Amino acid sequence: MAFKVGEGVATISKLVSWAVAYCIACLHQYTIFVTCFHLGSSNSYLDRISSSPSAPLQNYLQLDPKETALVLIEYQNEFLSEGGKLYEPLKECLAHTNMIENSAKLTKVAREKGAAIFHVPIMFREGAPEIYSKFGILSGIKEGGTFQEGTWNAEFHPDMTPSPEDIIVKGKSGLCGFYSTNLDFLLRQRHIKNVVIGGLLTNCCVESTMRTAYEAGYQVYTLTDCTAAIGVDAHDSMYKHNAGMFSTVTNSGEVEKAFD
Amino acid sequence: MAFKVGEGVATISKLVSWAVAYCIACLHQYTIFVTCFHLGSSNSYLDRISSSPSAPLQNYLQLDPKETALVLIEYQNEFLSEGGKLYEPLKECLAHTNMIENSAKLTKVAREKGAAIFHVPIMFREGAPEIYSKFGILSGIKEGGTFQEGTWNAEFHPDMTPSPEDIIVKGKSGLCGFYSTNLDFLLRQRHIKNVVIGGLLTNCCVESTMRTAYEAGYQVYTLTDCTAAIGVDAHDSMYKHNAGMFSTVTNSGEVEKAFD
Amino acid sequence: MAFKVGEGVATISKLVSWAVAYCIACLHQYTIFVTCFHLGSSNSYLDRISSSPSAPLQNYLQLDPKETALVLIEYQNEFLSEGGKLYEPLKECLAHTNMIENSAKLTKVAREKGAAIFHVPIMFREGAPEIYSKFGILSGIKEGGTFQEGTWNAEFHPDMTPSPEDIIVKGKSGLCGFYSTNLDFLLRQRHIKNVVIGGLLTNCCVESTMRTAYEAGYQVYTLTDCTAAIGVDAHDSMYKHNAGMFSTVTNSGEVEKAFD
Amino acid sequence: MAFKVGEGVATISKLVSWAVAYCIACLHQYTIFVTCFHLGSSNSYLDRISSSPSAPLQNYLQLDPKETALVLIEYQNEFLSEGGKLYEPLKECLAHTNMIENSAKLTKVAREKGAAIFHVPIMFREGAPEIYSKFGILSGIKEGGTFQEGTWNAEFHPDMTPSPEDIIVKGKSGLCGFYSTNLDFLLRQRHIKNVVIGGLLTNCCVESTMRTAYEAGYQVYTLTDCTAAIGVDAHDSMYKHNAGMFSTVTNSGEVEKAFD
Repeated sequence: MAFKVGEGVATISKLVSWAVAYCIACLHQYTIFVTCFHLGSSNSYLDRISSSPSAPLQNYLQLDPKETALVLIEYQNEFLSEGGKLYEPLKECLAHTNMIENSAKLTKVAREKGAAIFHVPIMFREGAPEIYSKFGILSGIKEGGTFQEGTWNAEFHPDMTPSPEDIIVKGKSGLCGFYSTNLDFLLRQRHIKNVVIGGLLTNCCVESTMRTAYEAGYQVYTLTDCTAAIGVDAHDSMYKHNAGMFSTVTNSGEVEKAFD
Repeated sequence: MAFKVGEGVATISKLVSWAVAYCIACLHQYTIFVTCFHLGSSNSYLDRISSSPSAPLQNYLQLDPKETALVLIEYQNEFLSEGGKLYEPLKECLAHTNMIENSAKLTKVAREKGAAIFHVPIMFREGAPEIYSKFGILSGIKEGGTFQEGTWNAEFHPDMTPSPEDIIVKGKSGLCGFYSTNLDFLLRQRHIKNVVIGGLLTNCCVESTMRTAYEAGYQVYTLTDCTAAIGVDAHDSMYKHNAGMFSTVTNSGEVEKAFD
Repeated sequence: MAFKVGEGVATISKLVSWAVAYCIACLHQYTIFVTCFHLGSSNSYLDRISSSPSAPLQNYLQLDPKETALVLIEYQNEFLSEGGKLYEPLKECLAHTNMIENSAKLTKVAREKGAAIFHVPIMFREGAPEIYSKFGILSGIKEGGTFQEGTWNAEFHPDMTPSPEDIIVKGKSGLCGFYSTNLDFLLRQRHIKNVVIGGLLTNCCVESTMRTAYEAGYQVYTLTDCTAAIGVDAHDSMYKHNAGMFSTVTNSGEVEKAFD
Repeated sequence: MAFKVGEGVATISKLVSWAVAYCIACLHQYTIFVTCFHLGSSNSYLDRISSSPSAPLQNYLQLDPKETALVLIEYQNEFLSEGGKLYEPLKECLAHTNMIENSAKLTKVAREKGAAIFHVPIMFREGAPEIYSKFGILSGIKEGGTFQEGTWNAEFHPDMTPSPEDIIVKGKSGLCGFYSTNLDFLLRQRHIKNVVIGGLLTNCCVESTMRTAYEAGYQVYTLTDCTAAIGVDAHDSMYKHNAGMFSTVTNSGEVEKAFD
């Protein structure tokens, strides 16, 4: 498009207008970053990831427990316990975010406050006859024999064992928490509006679930200190580049306070 | 889990086994990286992003045009043309990947070879009454008045104008190319197996579409040189951390050759 | 299953219990029938189908307009206007339910009360390249050249022309109002709880939409006097056998009163 | 629409054209009916429902087992065994179609020929906390305490027990076999093209599954002699009015031959 004479002012005004409008949404997470880095390390993004309780960024956060579901993705031994096939590559990031301890505490609080707790495990039969993909992460799951149902590997981590009143979502054979499960059906039945997501992996199943939940009209919350990925860099990148477009980025401490 | 005596060997063998299996899938992209960096700069990942025609990494790639759809996401003036509200923040990455020129060439070749061309524009009525989200990227779209139907901003970029035989996918109001559209219906009707994705933004609509397409069983291909994001870092991060889990990462030159 | 000694009483009690429980849901519509036929013709189901204003069966029906959408399926000339390709086979049932007049009045009232009005047209390009099905109703649509976009046939019936504030749902290429459209996205954005469905055909697109809406957790209402099918028998059968399992069967007069 | 002078011929030609085109699809089932009734009782629709092996209507039916799935919906004691809460109201239609024996034979043949066998059971925890619906068939399921997991009622009928190589679809909490399950994911992974549906109830879960399968692009087959409803009238109405729009109506004998 060639610019005509006299369009200069309109263009500048337009650039200012998109700068204001677009920054609100897509660049929201960058703003947090930039702000944080300028404010200094005591209130930085990395602190939020570490779930520093002294860094309350969003004191406005409020959640009605009756309309809120905590969606817990794949807190299974395969990922979280020594001896699990994927524990070693996750170990560094698990320590970095301390996600098991944070998630267990948040789950307890949320349950007591009356929020619905949804556990979303993944599992496959021996040999994973459910999967035919020759490429992508599913082919790796099949070849690695991970998450085999009936084995210790597919069981919940001891600190994240469901209570009798919790809901166990069924069917998860893919990555998104919605596509191959009854999660949406169950959330709709309970008139859930807020979906708070924790689990594994930050940039795989957690991210796919976050994206679909947003698409489906839920108010979505992602938790920097209740998620982990293969490598801290992959974890940080998801929160730096993607999470803000589809969710409110927060942490377990802020959500616990939001129920009051 | 406490380790019992004698489990040492089994554990080491287990660690080796996951290392082999898991690397195949989840870490596939890292492998490419590591390989590339060891091979030297002439065959590196950055070369692939720049679509260097002298760097054929996947000489095995083959696509039957009759089973292949090129899915082109939001090649609209708002993003791609000077004067579009989101052109300025995209400009750097557009130049970096040269995605308009590459996409136009690939579209022409794919169409001639007989592949189906699906254009997936996004648009909203004045004031965007379709959107009520108070958060996330949709609220930014609403506030920014972007992609208003009937305006130049929502029109296709001149180099990416659909041909009469192309299919225009309808309904896109959200981010994923599937959720709010007839894309899946149309792909299924044509018995499409391979979905090759180009467009904008690399880590927003392109990534959501890639994730859902993989979930839905399509063989998915993402194109480093036919996509762009707000900042080269966001673009590169998607290919570094996420794309390999859900797609074969390739470029326009390789896909063009794959139709032969 | 062989009955053991002493199970007789338990079995009888069980039979009574299912009779009570199951009748509430699955056989609800039969109950209405049986009741009606015993009460005599003045308050019968057939009267409800004829939309007799003197037969208010559900004086409890209440709808908050802000949470209610009127979903209007395919009020297009192809079906509803003399000269439309499908008008002749529909004519008898259109006269039987008087659905055009009833729908126009209900739409006006619902719009004034503040309910959201969603129009869901179906249309295809010349030759219907969107459809490849060799069987079922879609193959008939393709062969018949019906609902061609840009022609009078695909336009809304004059009495059902959308107002500027109404929403036009996009993408409908299949039968269900949800699968190939942005309807669910738009309903979720507006936090709609109640979906009131009118349109065509009673046992095809209306029924598929009703079934999916129920599955997706909406409170669904079907309107005997704002729907029609190819033959009164097909219309009546849907309300007799199926509608009560997935919706509250009602009519335009009752819904108009429910907004107060 | 007022007719202008000279439109008479065009209109007549148009009426003839829709008669030809529309009959092919929407009225296909009526054609079968009319034909049958004129041909006499030996080759009638009621014979097909009774699965008379001497009435091969579709000698052209061919199915590649590798691309075909037999989808078996809710062959559970609650419906099919004496003592099940819903056995009594189903009993008449079960005897009418002889669906247990026909389904068991077809499943055995299909498995031997190499088709994929998918079992789709429905079940709920005690008290059905999965369901909140106050209306429709789900509220009846909740109130009736039907299909409780861990009880005999939710187990498969002895003649329809899955073989180890069969797939058990998970998550079914609603009516459609797709919406709340991993059925679509599993079918896509196996590149299934043909979906052959048997089970219960003809006009409830079977019909919803048939409708969604057609929408999703599968070639759908419904089996008059492997389905049953609450009352023969409800069963017959589904095949008379609805099944032909979304599927090829056939029976177990024809499908068994189609694998050769």
